[in-house]
Amino acid sequence: MFGVTILGNNSALPAYDRHPTAQIVTLNDQLFLIDCGEGTQMQLSRYKIRRSKISHIFISHLHGDHYFGLPGLLTSFSLMNREQDLHLHAPEPLKRILELQFSTADTRFSYKLLFHALGDEGVIVDDEKFTVETFKVFHRIDCWGFVIREKKKPRKIDMEKLAGKDIPAIFYERLKAGEDYITKSGERIANESVTIANTAAKSYGFCGDTIYNETICKHLNDITLLYHEATFLKDQEERAASRFHSTTIQAAKIAQTAKPKRLLIGHFSSKYEILDAFLEETVAVFPQTQLALEGVTYIIK
Amino acid sequence: MFGVTILGNNSALPAYDRHPTAQIVTLNDQLFLIDCGEGTQMQLSRYKIRRSKISHIFISHLHGDHYFGLPGLLTSFSLMNREQDLHLHAPEPLKRILELQFSTADTRFSYKLLFHALGDEGVIVDDEKFTVETFKVFHRIDCWGFVIREKKKPRKIDMEKLAGKDIPAIFYERLKAGEDYITKSGERIANESVTIANTAAKSYGFCGDTIYNETICKHLNDITLLYHEATFLKDQEERAASRFHSTTIQAAKIAQTAKPKRLLIGHFSSKYEILDAFLEETVAVFPQTQLALEGVTYIIK
Repeated sequence: MFGVTILGNNSALPAYDRHPTAQIVTLNDQLFLIDCGEGTQMQLSRYKIRRSKISHIFISHLHGDHYFGLPGLLTSFSLMNREQDLHLHAPEPLKRILELQFSTADTRFSYKLLFHALGDEGVIVDDEKFTVETFKVFHRIDCWGFVIREKKKPRKIDMEKLAGKDIPAIFYERLKAGEDYITKSGERIANESVTIANTAAKSYGFCGDTIYNETICKHLNDITLLYHEATFLKDQEERAASRFHSTTIQAAKIAQTAKPKRLLIGHFSSKYEILDAFLEETVAVFPQTQLALEGVTYIIK
Repeated sequence: MFGVTILGNNSALPAYDRHPTAQIVTLNDQLFLIDCGEGTQMQLSRYKIRRSKISHIFISHLHGDHYFGLPGLLTSFSLMNREQDLHLHAPEPLKRILELQFSTADTRFSYKLLFHALGDEGVIVDDEKFTVETFKVFHRIDCWGFVIREKKKPRKIDMEKLAGKDIPAIFYERLKAGEDYITKSGERIANESVTIANTAAKSYGFCGDTIYNETICKHLNDITLLYHEATFLKDQEERAASRFHSTTIQAAKIAQTAKPKRLLIGHFSSKYEILDAFLEETVAVFPQTQLALEGVTYIIK
């Protein structure tokens, strides 16, 4: 399973029981948390998410609505006697903030918190089964986007078709990797004739708080599901720009250029109680759009 | 109106939709916030409390469950364009923590935040109509209790009884203050014969996280409603002590000594889903006890 569960879809000021940004990405048996606004630990309980499975936390930037829930969550992990390491990828100044808070509280941790400062663009996590890339987006303070990609999956060997062929078992891993086999007599056995493509590697792109800027699209190749903020409706383009945020139409334009399979929009201003117009305006430009709604899991397929 | 509304009655780990410590004290047209655990701003919305009326915030200590909601609340005040000054009374290290968070976020405030470091015991707010006193309680890190007292109210003049007496109007304020009047002929007119006592000045005492320690009672003279933490049931006395917390019986004993009109207990461990036993055990020692329940306002009378 590869999916994203929305815990918070609102901009800075909580309203209408909408919460500040937090998303759980599920990739098979691992969970990743992207941003951690105030109340995230309560939202995790509300939606019965197994927080012990969270292995990596990614914080896009240090406006409070994207991380004020983090010190509480990290403390609670310890109160629940977490033992496994936790990787935190975040802007560098967060380290000092957390250290100051935890030393003042004399907090003792039951687990190891590994802080990885965001800085260079590129791959920041390279796991056996997935990678995480980061890149700069454009906000009032330094702000990063993230792409979580499944690694290209090996092809599956078609045992029936393989039956008559003279290919040693030792070569099977290379078949799965897509290589042709050359027999001792020099005959080439085409990979496609004995293997079947696996399901395509999927990916999730996260562009949190950002002003409209097409240059981010170069980091968004081959995205299955793209989240892009849409804080305001289209008639508030000036207001959006003055606050380094985007409108519905601007999120849709990014999707038009980056060409993900689907677009998810969120970070709605608390100025809006009803969200219907966000969907209407965005779908008009990029039809495969959904609203990020709290408690809903969007499968990445 | 003088009362306290509970926004959070749980200990550090939020559970069963119970929240970390936060209380709103209403005194006529002013609101005071005591402690500000994560999610306090959402609780203020949930219970429709007019946050703009908050003039003073008191933070008992710097364990996260007592202040992790504060940076978000202070930011939100600004997003809502608050203009009036806000007084924050808190342990000194909080100043540096907040400065670091707000400078990192490049937060611009629409109002003036006045930080008052807690240190010496005694009166920390001396208003026309009330005082706030602070004193040390006994926790793993520095921790303060608070007493909010209405000022002694002037007596009311009984105009009917005054009618036949030769007392000049210029002396009325001194009558209200309780003085007898001596006429020119040397006759003493007893104050009680021409004035009526006003309602008694009431008070609210707050003893947040603390190990059982009778010495705090010397700061709890003449308290109308006393809040004392009761994190554990009586069979967990050792556990309570090891964590610098109190049990039901210990909270009740403090009340037996300090003799408030009523006792309110809270900060329940997330180990307990059902709270009935907290009330049963405490009432057995100090009958005038109530559980601090979220969303409930306890009138101080």
